Amino acid sequence: MFLRDEAEMLRRVPIFSKIEAAKLKLLAFASDRNIYTAGTALCHQGDRGDAAFVILSGNAEVYVHTPAGDMKVADVQPNSIVGEIAILCDTARTATVRAATEVEALRISKETFLKLVSDFPNIGVGMMRGLASRLAQTTSELTTTLSTER
Amino acid sequence: MFLRDEAEMLRRVPIFSKIEAAKLKLLAFASDRNIYTAGTALCHQGDRGDAAFVILSGNAEVYVHTPAGDMKVADVQPNSIVGEIAILCDTARTATVRAATEVEALRISKETFLKLVSDFPNIGVGMMRGLASRLAQTTSELTTTLSTER
Repeated sequence: MFLRDEAEMLRRVPIFSKIEAAKLKLLAFASDRNIYTAGTALCHQGDRGDAAFVILSGNAEVYVHTPAGDMKVADVQPNSIVGEIAILCDTARTATVRAATEVEALRISKETFLKLVSDFPNIGVGMMRGLASRLAQTTSELTTTLSTER
Repeated sequence: MFLRDEAEMLRRVPIFSKIEAAKLKLLAFASDRNIYTAGTALCHQGDRGDAAFVILSGNAEVYVHTPAGDMKVADVQPNSIVGEIAILCDTARTATVRAATEVEALRISKETFLKLVSDFPNIGVGMMRGLASRLAQTTSELTTTLSTER
């Protein structure tokens, strides 16, 4: 696949939609495009978080270890970002991301990711919106679960 | 209190620590400094989110409505930001923030807040780190609660 095509695929990701083509080509050039067959992991809970992933095609699932076994906590659709929490928090991976179908993903290194957010504040605002919305959702699920328990 | 003093107080907030003094004075000038007596609310769950709050002194608590009554979900320490989720998500307030002691807070309007994040990418990265860390914490609490239930 040519860089031009990868840049076009990146443009479909909402938070990249307003970035100029030349910059998206640079991002594609600085990142690795990988294919993951169904069932393989993009990253494992507990590993050092050294990259984020943009899902270009296919679907992934997010699992967390629990005493009762692995629990699925989220679905990841094409054109979304996953794996950014460990980069931002400088912690180990908080979850395992596994390909549910064949997945084509761009692996963006921590350095490239942080430079991107710092060079393009709109990407930062878009990422913050995504994180805030997931936090609101998770908090709501937690309070519902806890209040049902009582 | 003089703007210079408010700017000094803002510098104690980790995500503002690297912003130059003149910009912090502008931020203090563009925002309202309010005192909330213990027990009063800075914002109410369900209201339109039109501002974020920097806690300059005192302690606040975050409550969420549940069928079993209001549930406390977080403590807010001095020098931290609260109320930014509704601004970022363009949704109603997801929680009520109440002063636990007397609280002195800077009320930053949505417009000023978004301009700040866009002018200073480092603030954006700092905010993302905070959101990502809260998300990791809440997800972990949720999976622990759900796996104990099973």
